[in-house]
Amino acid sequence: MAGIIVQELADAVGGVLFGSGDILITGAASVNDAGPGDIVLAENEKYLAAARSSQATAVVVPEASSCDGKVVIQVENPRQAFSTILGLLASQLGVPSPGIDPSCRIGERVKYGQSISIGYGCYIGDDVTIGDGTIIHPLVYIGDGVRIGDNTVIHPNVTVYPGCEIGARVVIHAGTVIGSDGFGYIPVGSKQCKVPQIGNVTIEDDVEIGSNTSIDRAKTGTTRIGSGTKIDNLVHIAHNVKIGSGCLIVAQVGVAGSSEIGNCVTMAGQSGAKDHVHIDDGVVVAARAGVIGNLTKGVYSGFPARPHKEAMRAQAAYLRLPEMMKEIDNLKKQIEELNRRIADFGGDESGVESR
Amino acid sequence: MAGIIVQELADAVGGVLFGSGDILITGAASVNDAGPGDIVLAENEKYLAAARSSQATAVVVPEASSCDGKVVIQVENPRQAFSTILGLLASQLGVPSPGIDPSCRIGERVKYGQSISIGYGCYIGDDVTIGDGTIIHPLVYIGDGVRIGDNTVIHPNVTVYPGCEIGARVVIHAGTVIGSDGFGYIPVGSKQCKVPQIGNVTIEDDVEIGSNTSIDRAKTGTTRIGSGTKIDNLVHIAHNVKIGSGCLIVAQVGVAGSSEIGNCVTMAGQSGAKDHVHIDDGVVVAARAGVIGNLTKGVYSGFPARPHKEAMRAQAAYLRLPEMMKEIDNLKKQIEELNRRIADFGGDESGVESR
Amino acid sequence: MAGIIVQELADAVGGVLFGSGDILITGAASVNDAGPGDIVLAENEKYLAAARSSQATAVVVPEASSCDGKVVIQVENPRQAFSTILGLLASQLGVPSPGIDPSCRIGERVKYGQSISIGYGCYIGDDVTIGDGTIIHPLVYIGDGVRIGDNTVIHPNVTVYPGCEIGARVVIHAGTVIGSDGFGYIPVGSKQCKVPQIGNVTIEDDVEIGSNTSIDRAKTGTTRIGSGTKIDNLVHIAHNVKIGSGCLIVAQVGVAGSSEIGNCVTMAGQSGAKDHVHIDDGVVVAARAGVIGNLTKGVYSGFPARPHKEAMRAQAAYLRLPEMMKEIDNLKKQIEELNRRIADFGGDESGVESR
Repeated sequence: MAGIIVQELADAVGGVLFGSGDILITGAASVNDAGPGDIVLAENEKYLAAARSSQATAVVVPEASSCDGKVVIQVENPRQAFSTILGLLASQLGVPSPGIDPSCRIGERVKYGQSISIGYGCYIGDDVTIGDGTIIHPLVYIGDGVRIGDNTVIHPNVTVYPGCEIGARVVIHAGTVIGSDGFGYIPVGSKQCKVPQIGNVTIEDDVEIGSNTSIDRAKTGTTRIGSGTKIDNLVHIAHNVKIGSGCLIVAQVGVAGSSEIGNCVTMAGQSGAKDHVHIDDGVVVAARAGVIGNLTKGVYSGFPARPHKEAMRAQAAYLRLPEMMKEIDNLKKQIEELNRRIADFGGDESGVESR
Repeated sequence: MAGIIVQELADAVGGVLFGSGDILITGAASVNDAGPGDIVLAENEKYLAAARSSQATAVVVPEASSCDGKVVIQVENPRQAFSTILGLLASQLGVPSPGIDPSCRIGERVKYGQSISIGYGCYIGDDVTIGDGTIIHPLVYIGDGVRIGDNTVIHPNVTVYPGCEIGARVVIHAGTVIGSDGFGYIPVGSKQCKVPQIGNVTIEDDVEIGSNTSIDRAKTGTTRIGSGTKIDNLVHIAHNVKIGSGCLIVAQVGVAGSSEIGNCVTMAGQSGAKDHVHIDDGVVVAARAGVIGNLTKGVYSGFPARPHKEAMRAQAAYLRLPEMMKEIDNLKKQIEELNRRIADFGGDESGVESR
Repeated sequence: MAGIIVQELADAVGGVLFGSGDILITGAASVNDAGPGDIVLAENEKYLAAARSSQATAVVVPEASSCDGKVVIQVENPRQAFSTILGLLASQLGVPSPGIDPSCRIGERVKYGQSISIGYGCYIGDDVTIGDGTIIHPLVYIGDGVRIGDNTVIHPNVTVYPGCEIGARVVIHAGTVIGSDGFGYIPVGSKQCKVPQIGNVTIEDDVEIGSNTSIDRAKTGTTRIGSGTKIDNLVHIAHNVKIGSGCLIVAQVGVAGSSEIGNCVTMAGQSGAKDHVHIDDGVVVAARAGVIGNLTKGVYSGFPARPHKEAMRAQAAYLRLPEMMKEIDNLKKQIEELNRRIADFGGDESGVESR
């Protein structure tokens, strides 16, 4: 990373610079981790103190804040500005130069946009369409008839099965598989007969997908990931699932066949949803929760997933269970004592029966 | 997909055709998802009604059923017939032409059957055997000494480690790894010493394995997946596991070392089994269940996995826990009141002690 | 596997040999699984009996033990000796011959050590450093600026993103991804804006990583895996996580962003940890446990993870829940009966109110 001078960064975020503008910023870090040349974010007093005692060269701070001994960029929204600065520094990370590596196997009737890059050792099937500015890293398999939009990035060792559609500005990380067969079998006697999976997968614009994730093609029709949805690593999306726009699907989540997830839904890490459920817009499914029915607006946790407050009450009671058992034993003994005493009064020897 | 005329589909499933036989079917869909050119399945009245109002061109129906305005194929077993039709339509999807791509690196003493296809950029080690009609898609690694049966399909970016055996009519989806080392270490002081893993993996005939699944080689001997077993995406099968025939191992399941799973066992999504357990033939392990001991015939759920009915009773009670806590409090108060009243009768001031 | 004569194996482990030293050992197996040519381990009487009736050729036994009809190697620590023997047999498994396959795409300014091997179809970026004796199997992607230590082995279809650092004697199994972007977004209105991830991943010496595992690069700084730590298959390690030395991270574990795991920690299969938690040295997190806060020394289980004894007590109580519900009902009836009887004595008709 060659670096960017701090004046350029301040200008890019519309910030006010305090200090020498020609200092070179070569990296970014958290305040606990920063070395010379790094820029850090200090949103509040706690982080300003840490920034001050760090080795960082420059600090992004809120308006009216200062940070002794550091180059300072004051901005209205420090978090947003820091994100922009990270983006500028990241854009310095090597991107492959445009062109198609001569090692690649390119099919027939492939249509390319402008300024595309296809890296070493890729297989591009027949009738593939690739949009402007799209980057395909080395060792990627793109099956026949796949359509990819503009400015999309596909990382190494990704597999996109035939017939799938990938939108614009999509990012797919290494090892991810788009369009493997759905898991569909009909038991006939003791054998499991395969239901052919002839649909595809559609990844809409601005989706990002992590590494080693699997998204299965539809049995018929399409498995759809809505625009702007972000999917983490090692996620399983089964056949015919529909996920809306702007969702966050965190690592190791599994969504079973034909389930429908609305817009702006969060499924936190290691949660899951059974097949054919519907999750409304804006629902939050907590980490490790297991969805077994339709969910309407709200936060859900536990397995089976329930409204979070209810789940928390049951959880709290669960932790008190050993104590509850003792209390029940105690109540039993008290009742026996009461029976004994009443028998003393009334001469009724039998007492209340213990059932 | 060029399509198949509907008469041909009807003949293939031994069905009775109502309507014009030369109409072209270009795809298949669910009734909610169908467009012109599609064939759909309508097993009962509910689906017949949906089919009627869909845009589908043709419908597969039970004997004696009709569907106004659609081309109809009447059959005895509509589900089975629809599966056959899906298969015919799927067979129209491009399969690679036979031959070995000149880009491949082929080892020494490799034995090929008839009509095989090895795609672009594959590595085939020494002493590999590949059966008749087997298709190896691009960018696959096949290690030394691997034996692959007839009519097997291996999708892109798969890795098969040296010495593993793959049967006939097996399908392995993209990104899956067969034969990585088992996770075996012996602690010596504060270090973990590796136990070398010199066994292999045997995948029997008619097995299908999803994408990004990992099946570890045995420490010694073999990790075995029995004939006809179907494994979904992102599944972990540890070293020395034995899985019987006709099992369904759903997405994100993990089976720890040396466990033995019988025939026709279902392990539903995100469930797991610890090491060295035995699961009998026909057992069903419900989604997200965690098996920690041997299981005999039946359905099991929860963690630790218990007989499903028992687990459901505990689950039901769990949901009533906050209510139970209130009831216990209420009983306490009533007993106090009883004590007070008995003391009034008997002049015994102490009451029953609260323990 | 050509095999090694048994005298050579006995000498290598400092054992005492009983039987003919020139018999060839061609493999190793468990006692239940052994065939002719195999060596087995028999640590105690139970296994000695099984070894005796097995088809094994040779047996590793404790001092003073014997095994009729077999070639015997007596040693002080049979487990350790057997591990050494497995290692000797494993070293006979084919390793690629040194050299760089001419098919590879090698970047500029790459620095190689002695006796390295880079297999067919690899992509090696600019400014990469590769240490002595390191083996890179076919179809691997190594990004720009990656540094790899001595005697490391990288299996097929692995992706190492630019800028990551891999130590000496590291093993990375097939399909694993090192350095994919962390899952970081800032919600701005209904959109999720990406926080660029410009840090890297550092894998220290003697780490082993299973297949299809994902380790994300840091947002800034580094995601660190400490020396000697062993990671299994399908594990998710998020951005900025720090894992100490000598840990065991078992299959399908997930660790969320910025969490810190000490030295010699075990996280058993399918467990998880939320973001920003700290786990002390030596902690054991049981299978399927979910860590939601900091953990100090001890064994933890359940979700949320609690001290194991406490979790077991709650678990035991959980299983008694249906019974507890019956007991509460029974207590209610007894109290009603007591009320009735007291009312008989005292002429108070109302009894104790049921609240």
